[in-house]
Amino acid sequence: MEVASEGKAPRTERGRRTLRAILDAAAAEFGEKGFHEGSISGITRRAGVALGSFYTYFDSKDAVFRALVRDMSAQVRDHVAPAIRAAPDGIAAEQAGLSHFIDFVRAHKEIYRIIDEAEFVDAESFRAHYATTAERIEARLRAAAARGEVRADVGAAHAWAIMGMNVFLGLRFGVWEEDRPAEAIAAEMADFLRHGLAPR
Amino acid sequence: MEVASEGKAPRTERGRRTLRAILDAAAAEFGEKGFHEGSISGITRRAGVALGSFYTYFDSKDAVFRALVRDMSAQVRDHVAPAIRAAPDGIAAEQAGLSHFIDFVRAHKEIYRIIDEAEFVDAESFRAHYATTAERIEARLRAAAARGEVRADVGAAHAWAIMGMNVFLGLRFGVWEEDRPAEAIAAEMADFLRHGLAPR
Repeated sequence: MEVASEGKAPRTERGRRTLRAILDAAAAEFGEKGFHEGSISGITRRAGVALGSFYTYFDSKDAVFRALVRDMSAQVRDHVAPAIRAAPDGIAAEQAGLSHFIDFVRAHKEIYRIIDEAEFVDAESFRAHYATTAERIEARLRAAAARGEVRADVGAAHAWAIMGMNVFLGLRFGVWEEDRPAEAIAAEMADFLRHGLAPR
Repeated sequence: MEVASEGKAPRTERGRRTLRAILDAAAAEFGEKGFHEGSISGITRRAGVALGSFYTYFDSKDAVFRALVRDMSAQVRDHVAPAIRAAPDGIAAEQAGLSHFIDFVRAHKEIYRIIDEAEFVDAESFRAHYATTAERIEARLRAAAARGEVRADVGAAHAWAIMGMNVFLGLRFGVWEEDRPAEAIAAEMADFLRHGLAPR
């Protein structure tokens, strides 16, 4: 994925590791302080890199924040994708996706603050994150419908509904409290989906 | 509802009208500019009131923003409540709630920016808004379960799932695009809920 500022992509493995360290430090910095209070010096201190290294990859605080939103969006997708692909049917795929999403959120609680703040700092990335997530869910639902696993008329509203369920279940059971296993929540929701979207 | 700063509640009908005008102006100001760029002078200009009138009711920009979050939360609740109460059963109540919610959002598109920015400006009101909304949905689901209209074991996860569906359907079909009637979305989701939560 292209995350560094234009013309600043790392060319070596060592450069890629430094870029990764800067992005992880940016997640901690913006997750804890928010965009306005967060600073480039706070990021380089957390990453243990010199200020010059930051500017090797990014032009500005805005640029690293935009990169971080796209990076977190990609990290979530990559974390849930293998479990979704391995699932035996469409509903099991959504179940695995939700379970792994809650796990990811518990390990990266800052993701909500970062994606949510993007609405104000980088509206385009915010919109892209949700639009592409909904498109992926809709494509999976349509494939499941073609296999006869769910009703034939699944569409955008179902996809947005499932995305909204997942986002708020992640907030309540991943960020706010961890009072139930992720698998239990995902199983309960899969039952809800399996009956709610059953072929007619 | 107590929205003015402590000791500053209006005592006359005229005072209540001025307070209402200030809150509506604050919704427009913060909805358009965000909290950081929005200003008290922008609010009083939009409301057509003197700066002194603002301080008659609010201590600060923070105070009027906090009041606005609680006011918008209450406005949504009051807008959907009569239709929910008039519905013939629990699923029809959720259907009516979603349909009226999307209508409200279309008429008050700034609500998303304001509630979402509260996560950063006034975390307590943000949390209270979603916690109380989920509690209301869960109470309705449990009442419907007691009447045998939905499965007996409905709980917090179902309530958070429904809230998340509604929030994201409102964003997609209320704020971003108005490409389908609110009633059609709500009917599709009610069918989903009716089968998904059917008594076993």
